[in-house]
Amino acid sequence: MRLYDIETPEQIKNLSEEQLSTLADDMRDFIIQTIAQKGGYLADNLSVVDAMVALHFVFQTPHDQLLIDGGHQCLAHKILTGRSTTFSTYRQAKGLNTFCCTDESIYDTWNSMPLGSSLSIALGMACARDKAKETYQIIDFIDSKGIVTGSSLEALYQIGYGQHGMVIIFNEMVQTKPKANRILETLSSLRSSKAYRKAKESVNDTLRSNRIGNGVATAFGSVKDHIKDNLLSDNLFQNMGFDYLGPIDGHDMHALINAFQTAKAASRPIVVHIQTHLSYGYPYAQDQKGWQEVMPFHQDTGKSKVLVSKDQCDWETWIQSCIAFLQKQNPKLSMIDPSLSLRPNLALGMAAGIAKKGYHPFVQIQAKDVGQCIDTIQAHLAHMNSPVIVGVDQAGIVDGKGDVQQGIYDIQLLSSIPDIVISQPKDSQEALDLLYTASRSQKPFFIRYPFGIVNKPTEKNCHALSVGTWSQFQIGLDPKCIVITYGPEFDRILSKAKENQWDMIVINARFFKPVDEKILKQMFLMQLPIYIFEPDAKGSLSTVVMQVYAKIRNPIHILGIEDHFIQQGSIRSIRIQEHISVNALFKEIDHEQHAVR
Amino acid sequence: MRLYDIETPEQIKNLSEEQLSTLADDMRDFIIQTIAQKGGYLADNLSVVDAMVALHFVFQTPHDQLLIDGGHQCLAHKILTGRSTTFSTYRQAKGLNTFCCTDESIYDTWNSMPLGSSLSIALGMACARDKAKETYQIIDFIDSKGIVTGSSLEALYQIGYGQHGMVIIFNEMVQTKPKANRILETLSSLRSSKAYRKAKESVNDTLRSNRIGNGVATAFGSVKDHIKDNLLSDNLFQNMGFDYLGPIDGHDMHALINAFQTAKAASRPIVVHIQTHLSYGYPYAQDQKGWQEVMPFHQDTGKSKVLVSKDQCDWETWIQSCIAFLQKQNPKLSMIDPSLSLRPNLALGMAAGIAKKGYHPFVQIQAKDVGQCIDTIQAHLAHMNSPVIVGVDQAGIVDGKGDVQQGIYDIQLLSSIPDIVISQPKDSQEALDLLYTASRSQKPFFIRYPFGIVNKPTEKNCHALSVGTWSQFQIGLDPKCIVITYGPEFDRILSKAKENQWDMIVINARFFKPVDEKILKQMFLMQLPIYIFEPDAKGSLSTVVMQVYAKIRNPIHILGIEDHFIQQGSIRSIRIQEHISVNALFKEIDHEQHAVR
Repeated sequence: MRLYDIETPEQIKNLSEEQLSTLADDMRDFIIQTIAQKGGYLADNLSVVDAMVALHFVFQTPHDQLLIDGGHQCLAHKILTGRSTTFSTYRQAKGLNTFCCTDESIYDTWNSMPLGSSLSIALGMACARDKAKETYQIIDFIDSKGIVTGSSLEALYQIGYGQHGMVIIFNEMVQTKPKANRILETLSSLRSSKAYRKAKESVNDTLRSNRIGNGVATAFGSVKDHIKDNLLSDNLFQNMGFDYLGPIDGHDMHALINAFQTAKAASRPIVVHIQTHLSYGYPYAQDQKGWQEVMPFHQDTGKSKVLVSKDQCDWETWIQSCIAFLQKQNPKLSMIDPSLSLRPNLALGMAAGIAKKGYHPFVQIQAKDVGQCIDTIQAHLAHMNSPVIVGVDQAGIVDGKGDVQQGIYDIQLLSSIPDIVISQPKDSQEALDLLYTASRSQKPFFIRYPFGIVNKPTEKNCHALSVGTWSQFQIGLDPKCIVITYGPEFDRILSKAKENQWDMIVINARFFKPVDEKILKQMFLMQLPIYIFEPDAKGSLSTVVMQVYAKIRNPIHILGIEDHFIQQGSIRSIRIQEHISVNALFKEIDHEQHAVR
Repeated sequence: MRLYDIETPEQIKNLSEEQLSTLADDMRDFIIQTIAQKGGYLADNLSVVDAMVALHFVFQTPHDQLLIDGGHQCLAHKILTGRSTTFSTYRQAKGLNTFCCTDESIYDTWNSMPLGSSLSIALGMACARDKAKETYQIIDFIDSKGIVTGSSLEALYQIGYGQHGMVIIFNEMVQTKPKANRILETLSSLRSSKAYRKAKESVNDTLRSNRIGNGVATAFGSVKDHIKDNLLSDNLFQNMGFDYLGPIDGHDMHALINAFQTAKAASRPIVVHIQTHLSYGYPYAQDQKGWQEVMPFHQDTGKSKVLVSKDQCDWETWIQSCIAFLQKQNPKLSMIDPSLSLRPNLALGMAAGIAKKGYHPFVQIQAKDVGQCIDTIQAHLAHMNSPVIVGVDQAGIVDGKGDVQQGIYDIQLLSSIPDIVISQPKDSQEALDLLYTASRSQKPFFIRYPFGIVNKPTEKNCHALSVGTWSQFQIGLDPKCIVITYGPEFDRILSKAKENQWDMIVINARFFKPVDEKILKQMFLMQLPIYIFEPDAKGSLSTVVMQVYAKIRNPIHILGIEDHFIQQGSIRSIRIQEHISVNALFKEIDHEQHAVR
């Protein structure tokens, strides 16, 4: 069967296991070819091909509801549901979506979602199905990164306890050829023995270097593998109330089909545990690190098509090299190892604990993850006034992704939190200066930077910046307007204005919080047209500017709780304290009316 | 020893176990007396008294670092660290804090915090301690509600795996007299047998009524107890790498001291599991529900001091009765049982799954918890356009609490999310109207309401409101100013203005999103002073008003990504699509300059 011919999964139901395997091989080649051209999630998409073929062979989608946790590893599913002809538009505007997308196909039950959140959805769907006395199966396809999240663990307990019928396909992505039960059996018996504990302790001792957080590292794989190992070896799934099948070789079509058929017939919740290879079928990537999300590459060699010159690097690398540079002068500065890939909330909480004991930790999270950390940032960083430097990576518009995967909401969300600093450098030098400033500050300090390449300065020198100050540049003697912007836009606008000899003032609003009220006041008094150029969600920078405008130019009087944490008290006492009692309002109006008369 | 005499925990170190028990009894009386007068967290504060006495007897605080998860059950700790003389100011402005508070005492290691987040802090502190080669003990005091959260589970795995030395005191609060190992042993052996499974299934069948979510309920206690039972019975703690002591009667001073002394000497992470009674020592409350957080009550009778007349009830009850009323006409409307007290993210994800399958769920969360749900709301409600009605309870300033416990940030946080409706009624009738409107809407619909009492209408009639419309009321023929406000403030301001014959327009901004641009435009054109009165974090309502002001009156031009989800594409194509390319900026400036000339 040629993959271009597949319009619905029905068409594969008459194939033999051998034919299904051949189809899977063709699909892998097609996926490799697509991602080599367009970039995307290679390792995960390749690992799940056989399982997706078996899944669509056994289950009746879309009658049976398939949830793919995260949704970034959906390419095999998309081919099997009739979308192979649109792969040439993958990641493009109006093209095939990088993630699952309900608007694209009835076979996509859900859109892209945070890792580990699909099980709560599955639980809700199961409740609704049972209430309506319907009988379709719910299939949740989830991998190791998703299943070990707090939200998954919470949902698993509820599903198991309530005995809500569903099939959870747990895809364990391994680096080396899985040996069925052997490894797990060994690990499991080792774990409970004293010898293992001893071994683990001595390993940990060896690992303790002067980088903080290394004590969290593991000798037998990633930190998260430990949780997963526990889930398996102690048969936690079964204790939670699930039937359990596995582990199954996720590239053995026969075994997969058998397991899924057993699961399909179950009325109780069941976990099918499969083991697959990252990047299965692409020799340059298979069992290698760094192939999760890739830029376009040469299929013949596995080499990237993106050329980076010697005086350039990516933003993330630059920030880390700056921290390493600053550590030489400031031994209290410590980086929470990003390769541990701790969940953002755990990493931030841990950083707050480290800061409390006299260190100055740097921790990196992604801009799109800020929304799950607001509580932690508020309670553990802001309200504890923890000197933690937070690198907000992949800030701004991200290539080839839409909607909730975009890093454009973080400024707005963070701005609601009192007592923190939020900033973005315009270039690599300013990034170093901001990091230096942050390392001398005693406040939670957020520095955002985009995904992508940046020019490096010839050498590393750093200057402290005054927190909350912006910089400005005037072109011509008689500026006709003022542009306020931030980040790499600043230089682009400046060049373009110079090039075209437009007389204007361009402002680098490098701090979103606190903002430079002094410059703003000057600008408002100039009576020139002002343009706020914010390449993030509207309101990221302009919200604060308009608040200052209201305060200074006073077209509108705003009475609300100021940007600080409020102290406890009765509602009445808090209202008086914060000048938001009804009396305070009438006093203000009265005052104004008299002033006018 | 009289509790007023205690200035530091050192003073109790020479007492006998009997004397310690007597002290604990005195402390309980003192706490009951304080909370009867002031209101507060009774059940938890009483349950932990003996354990806190034993803890301060054994450990060397503040050298040893004590973290109290949540921090609301800290009264015994406060007495033992010399603060009994300030209890007369409990919950008052500038008085004794309801929670732990670092500004109040060096014995308070941390401020109030979200449930279940202390273990990530403990992990960070342990990393820092070990790096500095210091030897103090870290003690994390956490209860059943805290330990079953996703954040705790994530942190536990890391702590166990990294073997970070600390003492976790796990306080299981039980309703009936604990029988040491017996119950747990029985439960544990039952659980793994088939008989138990069968029993559980038949129980679940019985429970399935027509309220959605009841399938999640349990026969043996709260949903969360199940997780906790698992943690214990399967000795998950030990599998995670912890030493384990328990369960220990949390009111047996001798047993507590022994266990803590053993734990103190440990260099590996150890869990001490204690079992305590809710409201221990106060007969009217002991082992009763509803005594978690209480208003002032009569100590002799246990009856509330707050009188509610027949035509009043609390807001939460009113909202639930409205849902029940609306369900009669609309069987698809279903309430996720609030008594399940699911974690907010799980409840919201579940609601989205239920909505996907054709129901229209109502789910309640607290305003202060919105910050931990932003990702879920964005991905599963907004971007899936799920018809879910979210009741945002305890919105606005809350009595007797400060800082992160206040429900004043939710509007700002929610406003950053595209495609949702956010509203607040001014009274009970408008609440019913909003709920009715929400039940006919196909969008995620947020309705916020405060903690406290509301007047009920004489009968339930409901009217659909047009989403995004405000209402206005004019006093006098020649208004001198405009006040824009929302919620119960509207009527208060209106009365006061009428009473004093102040001519003004008062606007009820019952929708924060979308806002009523038509009314706003009219108001801006009237050239009257405008007052925005927002009794939440400044920016809650005014942010959007100022954005509309910028758009209509145009003092400042704002170019940013509009309030909708963006489609995928290359960065360049997204910029062009969203009119935020540098070219778009210069075109806008050019256009304006020509217009001016």
